[in-house]
Amino acid sequence: MKTESLLAARTLNMGENAIREILKVVSREGMISLAGGIPSPESFPVNIIKKLSQLILDKYGDQALQYGLTEGFYPLRETLAKQLRKTDIIVSADDIIISSGSQGALDSLGKTLITKGDKIAVEAPTYLGAISAFNPYEPEYITIETDDQGIIPESLENILKKGDVKFIYLVPTFQNPTGRTLSLNRRVAVADLIKRYNTLLIEDDPYSALRYSGENLPQIKSIAPSNTIYIGTLSKILSPGLRVGYIVAPKAIKEWSVLVKQGVDLHTSSFSQAIGYEYLEGGYFDKHLPYILDLYKPKKDTMLKALKNNFPDSFTWSKPEGGMFIWVEGPKGFNAESLYHKAIQENVAFVPGKYFYTNNEGSSTMRLNFTMSSPMEIETAIKRIASLL
Amino acid sequence: MKTESLLAARTLNMGENAIREILKVVSREGMISLAGGIPSPESFPVNIIKKLSQLILDKYGDQALQYGLTEGFYPLRETLAKQLRKTDIIVSADDIIISSGSQGALDSLGKTLITKGDKIAVEAPTYLGAISAFNPYEPEYITIETDDQGIIPESLENILKKGDVKFIYLVPTFQNPTGRTLSLNRRVAVADLIKRYNTLLIEDDPYSALRYSGENLPQIKSIAPSNTIYIGTLSKILSPGLRVGYIVAPKAIKEWSVLVKQGVDLHTSSFSQAIGYEYLEGGYFDKHLPYILDLYKPKKDTMLKALKNNFPDSFTWSKPEGGMFIWVEGPKGFNAESLYHKAIQENVAFVPGKYFYTNNEGSSTMRLNFTMSSPMEIETAIKRIASLL
Repeated sequence: MKTESLLAARTLNMGENAIREILKVVSREGMISLAGGIPSPESFPVNIIKKLSQLILDKYGDQALQYGLTEGFYPLRETLAKQLRKTDIIVSADDIIISSGSQGALDSLGKTLITKGDKIAVEAPTYLGAISAFNPYEPEYITIETDDQGIIPESLENILKKGDVKFIYLVPTFQNPTGRTLSLNRRVAVADLIKRYNTLLIEDDPYSALRYSGENLPQIKSIAPSNTIYIGTLSKILSPGLRVGYIVAPKAIKEWSVLVKQGVDLHTSSFSQAIGYEYLEGGYFDKHLPYILDLYKPKKDTMLKALKNNFPDSFTWSKPEGGMFIWVEGPKGFNAESLYHKAIQENVAFVPGKYFYTNNEGSSTMRLNFTMSSPMEIETAIKRIASLL
Repeated sequence: MKTESLLAARTLNMGENAIREILKVVSREGMISLAGGIPSPESFPVNIIKKLSQLILDKYGDQALQYGLTEGFYPLRETLAKQLRKTDIIVSADDIIISSGSQGALDSLGKTLITKGDKIAVEAPTYLGAISAFNPYEPEYITIETDDQGIIPESLENILKKGDVKFIYLVPTFQNPTGRTLSLNRRVAVADLIKRYNTLLIEDDPYSALRYSGENLPQIKSIAPSNTIYIGTLSKILSPGLRVGYIVAPKAIKEWSVLVKQGVDLHTSSFSQAIGYEYLEGGYFDKHLPYILDLYKPKKDTMLKALKNNFPDSFTWSKPEGGMFIWVEGPKGFNAESLYHKAIQENVAFVPGKYFYTNNEGSSTMRLNFTMSSPMEIETAIKRIASLL
């Protein structure tokens, strides 16, 4: 039978993910990839997980393998609440839902909140995974202007003044794709605006633990708690393959999101959650994090140095203190997609920045990832790209 | 801020899951529960999983912890295809998507296929998890009449004649909640109908491996392959907590479901998938299954015998050859919900059957689970319920 005619209206809106196509190219022999957005496999605590997987089967036995609560494994939620309180996000286990990665969090929240046509304010450029989570619920996007300190509060206020925004979606720290961080003053300003305009913010925070220099900044959730939904993940500090993320949400949204998640996947893997709990509660995270930071910092420094030494003066780039990405902006008329096609001929891949915009901008921008390649490969890759400019 | 006003239209349609409330009661001290729908913890191969979790970290190392393909871990899909071919479902790894449990399969398919108002034909009574997966996409349900051999083909044909059915959803083997199995003749008749009326069927098959007596029946997928989407799971034969299920779908639906799933959770836990692969491919499933069957068969036999010895003649019940449930129907006027309230006073829980209907029927029915309690507890529970009749 012809099944295409059976697809839902929303499905036909979704379309192929261009970045997925790019990532297929990356697996070619000899390719140096600055394209992915994934942690280095060297960062994974394989031996710790080996030990913990035995420990949890001894300690919890069948419980680690049985159906669990949709809200998530209670001890994991407790230890997350304890960690969050250290960053002045004052919550208890009952305020937390464990999700199947951040992606699961974004899907549940999109499903709980978005009615077709609802307006969502996002950064330009913004995180693509959020767009692919929200799109099936058919929202409209309004883009907030950004500069090298993140979103510009005046631009946000102009949007909020017009009313009618369902929520704002931000990655305030070491953003994907730009690596930019919202400055302290602007965090305070955004917190003030969402309170004043009685608006909901989704603060997606996968990268803040990956800080290689500088001072921690307060999460917006800690400044405007009742207006903010916070999303965290263990993907960047333990393992993305375990698919453990979490949502901290105001009570009503939390409760409805649980019902929503129940229909989506009943609950997140009990086994993964138990590993996550023992990793955090057993102090393994505190011991392992410095190793990850020592692994990534030289990669970032190498990329920044190579850009400075090789790229023309007409290019600018972000200088993040953490995370996984550097964002490059070329001069007017520079076409990053043409460059991408030349670069893959030279065995170097990156992602043209235009894919991170919801409004067809960004043709002169590019996202460079520094976690997956070695410092030497990063230097080679930047030189090769520079030679094509 | 007041967040209730921010909920999506679909969210307010969802409502509390009554069974979830019932299952909270079940955890009370001293309660004998025939209410749950979950495997016995004794059925889990804890030691095998212990061994396999070490093996996969040795064998795959960081790969078991990294982001993976949305479609799922290729070796697992290959071994599932091999298993399916043994039951005359002739497919390859490329036809299979790994889902986050069957629930994840139902959500992805609902999201891919259902536009608001679409008509879905379901059994009465039907599996509640499917309803909670489909409801957020706002379909309308048409109920197909059933008897003790499953759905009645004439009733299905009357529905299909009117046209306009997006898909049919069935659990043909050891159905939840009734334990009933669609007979061979009816399987052939249903396959013929869906081909003739060019209709799509979702065949959800979590229980067919749990057969304690009788002969295996062909899956409808093997008779009408291009009209059928097949859903399987490792939850009942390995562990539900790992959250590994799978979808076998015609090409176009498979490809769109991958895009949909990408937005929902990127992919199912790599670690869980690798455990599932080694469990099947290493022959552990073949060795462990007889243990599960030996565990459940006496429980089922005890329940059937206790019903026969203790329940009034005015009650009838299903006599399944497998699965996890027995379905009891009382005489006209019997109110299973009143009985439930009395039963929990006597420390016995079950689920009133009306919750499994989408059309407000079933007030005189009840679902009894036999996997979670011991044979002795089952006998005690049935006697206590009988004494309340």
